[in-house]
Amino acid sequence: MTREVDYEPRSVKRLLAEMKDIAELMIDLSYSAVLLDSDEVAEEVLQLEDEMDVLQLRTHMSLLMASRTPDDAEALAPVLGIVGATEKVSDATGDIAKIVLEDIRLPDAIRAALPEAVETLVRARVDPDSRFVGETLGGLNLETETGVRAIAIRRAGEWILNPDRETQLEPDDVVLFRGPDEGVAGVYQSTTGEAYLPPD
Amino acid sequence: MTREVDYEPRSVKRLLAEMKDIAELMIDLSYSAVLLDSDEVAEEVLQLEDEMDVLQLRTHMSLLMASRTPDDAEALAPVLGIVGATEKVSDATGDIAKIVLEDIRLPDAIRAALPEAVETLVRARVDPDSRFVGETLGGLNLETETGVRAIAIRRAGEWILNPDRETQLEPDDVVLFRGPDEGVAGVYQSTTGEAYLPPD
Repeated sequence: MTREVDYEPRSVKRLLAEMKDIAELMIDLSYSAVLLDSDEVAEEVLQLEDEMDVLQLRTHMSLLMASRTPDDAEALAPVLGIVGATEKVSDATGDIAKIVLEDIRLPDAIRAALPEAVETLVRARVDPDSRFVGETLGGLNLETETGVRAIAIRRAGEWILNPDRETQLEPDDVVLFRGPDEGVAGVYQSTTGEAYLPPD
Repeated sequence: MTREVDYEPRSVKRLLAEMKDIAELMIDLSYSAVLLDSDEVAEEVLQLEDEMDVLQLRTHMSLLMASRTPDDAEALAPVLGIVGATEKVSDATGDIAKIVLEDIRLPDAIRAALPEAVETLVRARVDPDSRFVGETLGGLNLETETGVRAIAIRRAGEWILNPDRETQLEPDDVVLFRGPDEGVAGVYQSTTGEAYLPPD
């Protein structure tokens, strides 16, 4: 990681809440990458691992700055344990992603049909000519019309982890869409301008 | 873990999908336990850690049984890596839960208001006299009426990880409910027959 991270005052609770969101997304993406055999999804896990490193550093800084008295130090020391455990989660999901990128494919003998609960997850870059540019997720009404949800957006190296109805799509946004195959195919094409190739 | 786990033929993909669901739930619960300062939620993480151990053992068995040829072995060996990484995730969230149970409380100096995105998460045991007994989640229509969702149910040591509209509540079910404070208070009281005490 070459990015420099300066101290800025931020609530430790808010930082923990962000780490929670990222950790959940990393689990989701790393397993989805295995189950759907998707290198693209695995690569997003590695992007999130970097983001988690930055958050951990910020949390460390905030904890050090918040500790003024022996009582503070006593109360805050366990939080360092939580940050350390989070690093293990992040590393482990990163390991899963790397295994996928190193080309794991379950042999046909045990490639059973996917449980129906597992929907498709796809990474789509917003084409500057897409009709989605400048639209909000609420305005597009994707979920109602196609069953497809935008679960996270990466924009210029920053993450929008819980995009909502007001979130506007911009050119070159990388959007992670989840939903049923047919819905995802249409949304992918409208986003990227390219045909969707489902995992086989 | 004293529970004995026998081999039964199960698809590795299905086992991985279950491990994904449990890992996501463990992350969610362990961080929620920290953020809401809830021992009850932390205890559910330790229950899930046991469940994950069983799943890992089953996955190991299925992998060993599925490996008939050198090609199989080559393709399946990396899956053992994924199972190992999952164990790290499970252990790390268990560590977080144990820190919560050992009584971590963020000092007032940094106890900022919770980000609004963090809803309350509560564990409620279904009282045999509750009006919820025998009702389906769909029939109760909780989410529409109160904003509260049942995210998992523990029933006689087994987990229902993705309860849906058809899931019926039974006496002594342990239900994890998530939602806004006011909604959770009402649902908790209807479930347990006891008043809800919010975390302070």
